[in-house]
Amino acid sequence: MKVKEIMDKEFIDVSPDQGLIEVSIKMEKHKKFTTPVVDSENHLVGWITSLDVTRGLRENLKTVSDIMHPKDDIVHVHENDPARLAVLETSHHKLVSIPVIDDNDVVMGVVRSFDIVETLSQLYEIKVSKIFEAMEQELKGVSWDELMEASAIVTRRRIGKRIKPQEYEKNIKDATFGEAIWATGGLEKFFVGLIAIGEMVIARKVARARN
Amino acid sequence: MKVKEIMDKEFIDVSPDQGLIEVSIKMEKHKKFTTPVVDSENHLVGWITSLDVTRGLRENLKTVSDIMHPKDDIVHVHENDPARLAVLETSHHKLVSIPVIDDNDVVMGVVRSFDIVETLSQLYEIKVSKIFEAMEQELKGVSWDELMEASAIVTRRRIGKRIKPQEYEKNIKDATFGEAIWATGGLEKFFVGLIAIGEMVIARKVARARN
Repeated sequence: MKVKEIMDKEFIDVSPDQGLIEVSIKMEKHKKFTTPVVDSENHLVGWITSLDVTRGLRENLKTVSDIMHPKDDIVHVHENDPARLAVLETSHHKLVSIPVIDDNDVVMGVVRSFDIVETLSQLYEIKVSKIFEAMEQELKGVSWDELMEASAIVTRRRIGKRIKPQEYEKNIKDATFGEAIWATGGLEKFFVGLIAIGEMVIARKVARARN
Repeated sequence: MKVKEIMDKEFIDVSPDQGLIEVSIKMEKHKKFTTPVVDSENHLVGWITSLDVTRGLRENLKTVSDIMHPKDDIVHVHENDPARLAVLETSHHKLVSIPVIDDNDVVMGVVRSFDIVETLSQLYEIKVSKIFEAMEQELKGVSWDELMEASAIVTRRRIGKRIKPQEYEKNIKDATFGEAIWATGGLEKFFVGLIAIGEMVIARKVARARN
């Protein structure tokens, strides 16, 4: 996934000679805490936040150029950078948004932290039952009931908790992937549990074929 | 995971009768775009953003109470709510931060979108090799080399790409879980690929045991 797939293209921008009163009204109207500063050809030249604007208004400064952070001092990413880079920059520098440029330094969008949250959280929100359904499809000759039975047995062996296959089925129907890895103690442990279940049903399938 | 495990406890707050000049200086100093408004016993009574402050300074308003959003109009979460709720509220309402309260409405912290990004991205950053190492440990009697060989075969069957076990090993050594699910087309497909690898090595192990 690339930065351009997660960036907001509906951004506002301002110019260095724009007045702070006008700029504050624009930022409030569009509910933006940050905005890129561009020249007449939309090249990124700087960045301002609403905290720069409060300082500017308080100190009676006049234009964007009086308060802006020049391009060299700010974090920015390229539209073709991996989205992962924008994620790492956001969390590392604790940023609410990052400007996105193209090869010519033209501003193409803004990556926003809440949009990243939305993208990242999709993985956590996947239903665990979807993973089991994919497993059932993959393991030809193994039924859903056999999977649930093996899951109940593996659960008892691993965490010592007696659970009926029907209860297990009900649990995974409601649970999300995020909850499951939290409950099992991490991604590797969750996956190892699945492999243990797979190993059991495969061993049973092989035994059946032999008889 | 609960909200209190991901919230920032180093937050600032302001009172309704505080002057806007003083508040703007405090928010700039601590680099906060938002802050809870509390009464003398730290109960949440409202919320302001730096965009409310720019409007207040521009319109010559005097105190926090002139610009604040009352508690009933804003999103807030309880410290014992599931962290998932704060994540969903952040992405749904496109918020940069959310105040956290306890049973008595006392402000306990602030959940910030970039902190959520950091927490969520940890899952994406797990190395794929860690999952294979967990798999190797779980599947007693299956060697790492057998796992890599089976992985190369499964990859060829599924995506038609010829790859040597050594190349496969090199790929997973560098890859993250996020990159892997992106490359395979989603979480379910990634898991199904691993299950297919597991099935192959288990079948071989069973055949070996029979001979």
